[in-house]
Amino acid sequence: MNITAQWIIGFTDGEGCFHIGINKNPSMNLKYQILPEFTVVQHQRDIKVLYALKAFFQCGVVRKNHGNVLSYRVRGQKNLSIKIIPFFEKHRLKTSKRIDFYNFRKVIRMIDREEHLTVEGLEQIKKIQELVSSRKKL
Amino acid sequence: MNITAQWIIGFTDGEGCFHIGINKNPSMNLKYQILPEFTVVQHQRDIKVLYALKAFFQCGVVRKNHGNVLSYRVRGQKNLSIKIIPFFEKHRLKTSKRIDFYNFRKVIRMIDREEHLTVEGLEQIKKIQELVSSRKKL
Repeated sequence: MNITAQWIIGFTDGEGCFHIGINKNPSMNLKYQILPEFTVVQHQRDIKVLYALKAFFQCGVVRKNHGNVLSYRVRGQKNLSIKIIPFFEKHRLKTSKRIDFYNFRKVIRMIDREEHLTVEGLEQIKKIQELVSSRKKL
Repeated sequence: MNITAQWIIGFTDGEGCFHIGINKNPSMNLKYQILPEFTVVQHQRDIKVLYALKAFFQCGVVRKNHGNVLSYRVRGQKNLSIKIIPFFEKHRLKTSKRIDFYNFRKVIRMIDREEHLTVEGLEQIKKIQELVSSRKKL
């Protein structure tokens, strides 16, 4: 399946999600682990487009979510930092999902600089995540 | 806002809907009215993309659905027949929403030939609509 950058932008404006997970993890120094992920969710009947995204970005996995729902998911700092972020910088989202992307990028760049390992950095990431969550509830 | 054909295809693959409404209407000869519509639904924060679609297709309206949800909607045989259908024929949807589109097009072309005014035509349209509805419930 042939997909173009503009199609991906349109599809992401509809179905994409820039998620910043913050999980308690006692083995970490600050007791929290930051888990950013880019996901696109789809009914299993359209599993092909999820694999087309995986082939396009050359990273990520296609996984079952629940019931008939699957998702294409990219985790991992390197993939997010050098593949996902530059793509959405080059090709601008049209909906307000762009704001989620900017916040997501902010966190990815902080992790690039290892700021998430400091108390101040972690607090800032928590604040960004709260902002993103509250915007989605509007 | 600048939107391209490929962005529209991606966004429609995510958020678009090809709906075939069939309403009882005692004033019609066969007591039923066929109401096909193409819609794209969106939170009001992204009303701009709905108006961008309206400007692109040069037809349709942006209306409030319920709560914070708005939709861009194209009804009217002429607009569907000469603007919407040719666009999605030229630019191929990537998801299985393409099947909905093919069924939708079948109905629009039947109405073009006034077949919906015959008992046989109406029955065929009802069957197509049932097919589309059952596919969505899978």
